[in-house]
Amino acid sequence: MDLNKFFKAKSIAIVGVSKTPGKVGHVIFRNLIDAHYKGELYVVNPNAKEILGYKSYKKVQDIKKPIDLVAIAVPAVLVLKVLQDCQKAKVKNVIIVTSGFRETGNEQLENKLRNFLIHNRMNAIGVNCLGVLDTYTNVDTLFLPRFRLKRPKKGGIAFITQSGAVGSTILDLASKNNYGFSKFVSYGNATQVDEADIIEYLANDKQTKVICMYIEGVVDGKKFMRIASKASKKKPILVLKGGTSKEGHKATISHTGSLAGNEKIYNGVFKQTGIIQVETLEDMFDYARLLEKSMKPKGKRIQVITNGGGFGIITTDALVKNGLELATLSKDSERILKKNFPPIAQIQNPLDVLGDATTDRYKLSIETFLYDKNIDIILVIALLQTPLITVEIVDTITELNSLNKKPIIVVSTGGDFTEVLRNSLEENGVPTFVFPENSARAIKALVDYNSN
Amino acid sequence: MDLNKFFKAKSIAIVGVSKTPGKVGHVIFRNLIDAHYKGELYVVNPNAKEILGYKSYKKVQDIKKPIDLVAIAVPAVLVLKVLQDCQKAKVKNVIIVTSGFRETGNEQLENKLRNFLIHNRMNAIGVNCLGVLDTYTNVDTLFLPRFRLKRPKKGGIAFITQSGAVGSTILDLASKNNYGFSKFVSYGNATQVDEADIIEYLANDKQTKVICMYIEGVVDGKKFMRIASKASKKKPILVLKGGTSKEGHKATISHTGSLAGNEKIYNGVFKQTGIIQVETLEDMFDYARLLEKSMKPKGKRIQVITNGGGFGIITTDALVKNGLELATLSKDSERILKKNFPPIAQIQNPLDVLGDATTDRYKLSIETFLYDKNIDIILVIALLQTPLITVEIVDTITELNSLNKKPIIVVSTGGDFTEVLRNSLEENGVPTFVFPENSARAIKALVDYNSN
Repeated sequence: MDLNKFFKAKSIAIVGVSKTPGKVGHVIFRNLIDAHYKGELYVVNPNAKEILGYKSYKKVQDIKKPIDLVAIAVPAVLVLKVLQDCQKAKVKNVIIVTSGFRETGNEQLENKLRNFLIHNRMNAIGVNCLGVLDTYTNVDTLFLPRFRLKRPKKGGIAFITQSGAVGSTILDLASKNNYGFSKFVSYGNATQVDEADIIEYLANDKQTKVICMYIEGVVDGKKFMRIASKASKKKPILVLKGGTSKEGHKATISHTGSLAGNEKIYNGVFKQTGIIQVETLEDMFDYARLLEKSMKPKGKRIQVITNGGGFGIITTDALVKNGLELATLSKDSERILKKNFPPIAQIQNPLDVLGDATTDRYKLSIETFLYDKNIDIILVIALLQTPLITVEIVDTITELNSLNKKPIIVVSTGGDFTEVLRNSLEENGVPTFVFPENSARAIKALVDYNSN
Repeated sequence: MDLNKFFKAKSIAIVGVSKTPGKVGHVIFRNLIDAHYKGELYVVNPNAKEILGYKSYKKVQDIKKPIDLVAIAVPAVLVLKVLQDCQKAKVKNVIIVTSGFRETGNEQLENKLRNFLIHNRMNAIGVNCLGVLDTYTNVDTLFLPRFRLKRPKKGGIAFITQSGAVGSTILDLASKNNYGFSKFVSYGNATQVDEADIIEYLANDKQTKVICMYIEGVVDGKKFMRIASKASKKKPILVLKGGTSKEGHKATISHTGSLAGNEKIYNGVFKQTGIIQVETLEDMFDYARLLEKSMKPKGKRIQVITNGGGFGIITTDALVKNGLELATLSKDSERILKKNFPPIAQIQNPLDVLGDATTDRYKLSIETFLYDKNIDIILVIALLQTPLITVEIVDTITELNSLNKKPIIVVSTGGDFTEVLRNSLEENGVPTFVFPENSARAIKALVDYNSN
């Protein structure tokens, strides 16, 4: 299924644009203008002549120009009529944000839409969705104002979500945390285009490095397995499954109307298709950031460097609890460090560079471990509260990381000063974490994905 | 053991204050000045006449004024001499930040100090520690510059830590996240004052509502159990135990020299004494914030309110996974909400107030549930990206929370706009969370603590 025009549309018509700010269609239109969307924009509202300086058309077929994508934001009872108009105007791709179908018991109307779409070989994302956001082309059908919901910067994480609310809040959070997204798809009821179609598209999308998903159920199990198995070999797929408890499952029925199905079956499906199942929203994006940024590790032997003994211990506990191994550093590494470290230092794993560590001591340790064959991944705990670490640590670690020899991951816990330095590292391509336990879980996902 | 003067010292002498900024003693002295510490300050340095405008004394006994507390920051070999001086000056309380004792194999010297302290009935926090911070009196012996390590605001969380690095980074993070702390104690090797003594003191401290601990081992198991059992009945005690893995345990030996002991024994001790053991640093302060702020719930029946269906499902899954129950709302509640909600809404748990929810719809739901006897705790998911929720939601929830009828907990996931509103709630006494899964784990701790 070719979904390219949903993201790279050169012209978009929005049907159901009210003159009133705050209404769904109006917000979508306004957002596209604010996002400096570069393609042609058309608005359809039979009761208006002009909206925000744009001519308002009565029907889609009145536009008489090629339209790559139509966003539909009219009441449920009018959607079929708009689809017929689209068909007449030779429109092939539509996003139906309108709700009030299967999720509220109106299954019959939704089936009618599906039949019409299939019969006329049209592709539709929705119904009951937010649609798409492409950070590269600025195609954006999210009907949420940009001041309340910031859009994330360009990056390699794609996010597919059955729930618009989960999707939009995560986008907003991602923008605050400076995570880079490639594409976002809120597909709602999956009336015609389903989650598997979107995975297939994203698996071949060059801007996407990692695929994240929030789903409550899949539409077609066999199709999902076939597509996901192939896709997960190309890039990591992370899934948070909603409705894993009996009570949560019950709630999915009145939400997207998904039949969430037996949890054990889903767990099996994810395992068999190579999908990484996560337990929490926080984990999903922690894992995604690491998988997006990190190179492939050769194994699971971790060397920890720390300037706080307690952090070394907490980190060690977390790594071991996640099935990872502490590396045994080579005799060569030991010799180099013993020669250059103060005599009080113990050359071991975790390596405590001590509270009076300078940036140079970090540099020497990381450099040494990059060439140590007993070590697969270097986990650097840099507590920036101590006076002798200079801000040059950002450049130092960035340079060592760009040698692309081994994954280097940094944990820095702290306040504003720490955050500034941690964000600089992250922007320079070094994956970073606030808490050691979160980094350990993410490293486990990195190791697991790359060991298959 | 009376530790009062460690926190409420009216006069402090710092021994080992170099003229050079950045050196340990100098930083402590400078920090006390910057913190506007209101008591008398004295500096001891035999090689200086004056430091930062203060007269420098050759020895503690030269000061000839009553000294409530002495902070010692001289090299390890000089500490015993300084203690002898303190004894001559009738000083009863000292903090020894100096390291280089048991943790580096120098057990003999540490034993000498201990014997001297016991023989002379002096109390010492340390060695190998940061000492104390009292946010109310501004007593602050942390040798880390305030621009790198911000101090948290006044509040009800006390934090005891064996590791200075864990303690300081958490203080810094807490200040950024606006968590309120009462007291902080980094006690290092526990040469004489141990973790149990500090627990005993904090259990009777009125400013402290919750006690958090990072420990790698306890000094005296029987004493710890006796004191902790009593203290945990007065207020919640949360512990993160370092060295729970074999590898982590090994690392504790070269850190604080703790014999971390068998994990199963520790788990048993914590359970028996009513201490809540946490798995991660993040959880510890999530739990502490909730336990500090929340009133006691009557039971574990939770009512979820959400304006995003997917979030209701994720939250339900997380609550159930943590052994909590979804409340069955009463017929009265059902009737009130059915009457006032749009017909499309399903009155159930989780209650979806729908994407077009206004602040009023939240108000009605929370008010109704406050009077519903089937409900013990109200968990409000407020996704603030949707246009119809006004900023008045902060006042609304704050007012309902201040009725003190039931715990009200808010989850708001998002970016800058969300953060501003979430922080306002938190400052107004409403416990808040970024992620639903974290709130569920914290609620579990709240319920467990109050069900004993």
